[in-house]
Amino acid sequence: MLNVITLEEALQLVRETFVPAGAKERVPLGEALGRTLAEDVTAAEYVPDFDRSNVDGYAVRARDTFGCSDAIPAVLRLQARIRMGERPDFALEEGCCAAIPTGGALPRGADSAVMLEYAEEFGDGTVGIARSAAPGENLTFRGDDVSPGKLLLPRGRILHPQDVGALAALGITNVPVTAPLRAAVISTGDELVAPDKKPGPGQVRDVNGPLIEAQLADAGIRAVRFGIVPDREDALRKAVENAIQDCDAVILSGGSSVGEKDASLRVIGSLGPVLFHGLAMKPGKPTILGRCGNKPLIGLPGHPVAAFFVTRLFVLPLLSRLSGTEFEPRQCTARLTENVSANHGRAYFCACRLRKEEDGIAAEPIRTKSGLITALAGADGYFCVDRDCEGLMQGAQIRVFCLRENDYGL
Amino acid sequence: MLNVITLEEALQLVRETFVPAGAKERVPLGEALGRTLAEDVTAAEYVPDFDRSNVDGYAVRARDTFGCSDAIPAVLRLQARIRMGERPDFALEEGCCAAIPTGGALPRGADSAVMLEYAEEFGDGTVGIARSAAPGENLTFRGDDVSPGKLLLPRGRILHPQDVGALAALGITNVPVTAPLRAAVISTGDELVAPDKKPGPGQVRDVNGPLIEAQLADAGIRAVRFGIVPDREDALRKAVENAIQDCDAVILSGGSSVGEKDASLRVIGSLGPVLFHGLAMKPGKPTILGRCGNKPLIGLPGHPVAAFFVTRLFVLPLLSRLSGTEFEPRQCTARLTENVSANHGRAYFCACRLRKEEDGIAAEPIRTKSGLITALAGADGYFCVDRDCEGLMQGAQIRVFCLRENDYGL
Repeated sequence: MLNVITLEEALQLVRETFVPAGAKERVPLGEALGRTLAEDVTAAEYVPDFDRSNVDGYAVRARDTFGCSDAIPAVLRLQARIRMGERPDFALEEGCCAAIPTGGALPRGADSAVMLEYAEEFGDGTVGIARSAAPGENLTFRGDDVSPGKLLLPRGRILHPQDVGALAALGITNVPVTAPLRAAVISTGDELVAPDKKPGPGQVRDVNGPLIEAQLADAGIRAVRFGIVPDREDALRKAVENAIQDCDAVILSGGSSVGEKDASLRVIGSLGPVLFHGLAMKPGKPTILGRCGNKPLIGLPGHPVAAFFVTRLFVLPLLSRLSGTEFEPRQCTARLTENVSANHGRAYFCACRLRKEEDGIAAEPIRTKSGLITALAGADGYFCVDRDCEGLMQGAQIRVFCLRENDYGL
Repeated sequence: MLNVITLEEALQLVRETFVPAGAKERVPLGEALGRTLAEDVTAAEYVPDFDRSNVDGYAVRARDTFGCSDAIPAVLRLQARIRMGERPDFALEEGCCAAIPTGGALPRGADSAVMLEYAEEFGDGTVGIARSAAPGENLTFRGDDVSPGKLLLPRGRILHPQDVGALAALGITNVPVTAPLRAAVISTGDELVAPDKKPGPGQVRDVNGPLIEAQLADAGIRAVRFGIVPDREDALRKAVENAIQDCDAVILSGGSSVGEKDASLRVIGSLGPVLFHGLAMKPGKPTILGRCGNKPLIGLPGHPVAAFFVTRLFVLPLLSRLSGTEFEPRQCTARLTENVSANHGRAYFCACRLRKEEDGIAAEPIRTKSGLITALAGADGYFCVDRDCEGLMQGAQIRVFCLRENDYGL
């Protein structure tokens, strides 16, 4: 008998049972994109480290320009030309200015910069300034952007391109990130052949292996491929024992025969407590969760659509718990294009295609008799008919969890 | 003088000027995730390739069970036990049944399967069936999922995990995808040092290189790093000429001095027509677009925030045009937490942080005097104040373009 629990109960059990694995590593800046910060990143320097001009023009002492105008420019002596990337080694004298490029370092004594547009070099070593400058105008001061001690990015932040830029600015090129989880993926079943093989009579290709590996990779988890293991308890036990040495989690995707189900359950149960056996969802009922220390052992249904939904709805949140991150799938609201009748007593998950329409998004359920791969290929999202709900009507506004990104103007 | 055009005009110019590069390659299934299909994928086989049972139980001839019940079971002779992965080499005889696992191949003659729950082996070579079976019940027929010629996935589809699973099912392990674009990233400026170096007086670290490389990588474009090129026209010209041999596009991120701007413009202009010089957006005005054949040459502002926005708003759509894909950033609606005043005559882009609140999402503008890296680090999105708009009021519902994924329940 299955000890069936709901998905919500299963996820609650996960939160109570497993703790974040907490492993860290350091990666070069060029590999930090998409990784999760393992520590707060605090500035250790001033950015910029010097006062600089925001404009192409002239560094001045503001008071030397007070009261000037187009008609009566202030005439200042051109004391120097400052070049990019050099710190001026002089102090600006009274009645003088220095040509300065955008980003150039301000000389001592200067307290403002005048834009090129308001200045004219007379060719005799003097410059006419046609607009009075306010102290501090057109300048960025040392530390305006960042000062030592400022929290730049918090622990747990998933690093996006803009964060990589900020780390570069501070010279943090060896970035502390959480080590990616390693999850073993094992397919079992005597009927399975590798996807690049032609199935013989009665055989099918292993879909779950590549499918689950791709789902894990998509979530930033390192899938460790263990391939196809024959449907014998000793072979399965050996594979799981090897996997658990090397990985943070083991995902068995069972064939669906009685023997395999039993073998998975016995192997998982021999390594630690079985936390549940059976999820009240469709597809996905024959799911097993066991525990070996802080490492989950997961037995998934052999049916690809079921394996897909359980991975998405249960395994990814479980592994996110281990990696200390949040897994929150994108959602949108869409109009259902046809009636969907539901099953009794189990949350029913249905894949769908999404279409942008004038007045919103339309969700077209993908129906297949068998619920095999055509229910997945080309799917854009999925929705749930709650276990207490008898069905959804055409035209209903439903919540769709999205499987594709950068789409539908969400 | 800048020949300034709006972002919309610039993107229209891109559509009129550049055509998709159209290069294809083949990758192993394990590397296909996230890639774009270069060809329609059509099934060449039946999936499954044989009639199979959907349940653990007994394959029967339906008519042998008609009229049976709990009280008066049909008693059938157990002719065989079918194993997973084997094609039965017999025909089911009248009055007989065969034990069959879920996914097992149906023997000839059988036309239905009865679930284990409704059957009992009597131990004398016979099985009692307590429920009459309808023809076709609990079966998946050959080709139910896919038949040869069926379009499985269309050209242009970005491959998601569920698509990888479908390709595995069909044995398509060498996947035709569009070749990723290669874009050269060149930083110019005498004041720049590599991010892992300590800047000397008047120097700053190269932020734009790592920033733009990360933005490209995030969009699936292969950034080819050319590093920092000194601010001399001959050096810049040599770097660009090298880059254009090897890459589909060249992105110069200029220092911001007058000399550099001129050098970029002259180098770009010497290799083909300059399509525009100046974008009516803030930040981001000093942007240059040139063309060498079907290869864009892009001069970006040196300012990191400006480079970031122009890359996001202009360069990524441009490169998507070349790769034949759509670039559509995610959006959400959020409540502005404070007034934002705008500039005149230029679309103004402002980074913001997003917070989930009870009644929706709050967008808090990130304000910095200088608009340097702190305006980017930790940003969750950005919004635009249109060029004709004088500002946005606190509390306004605004459209925010999201920079982070899997957040805010979108």
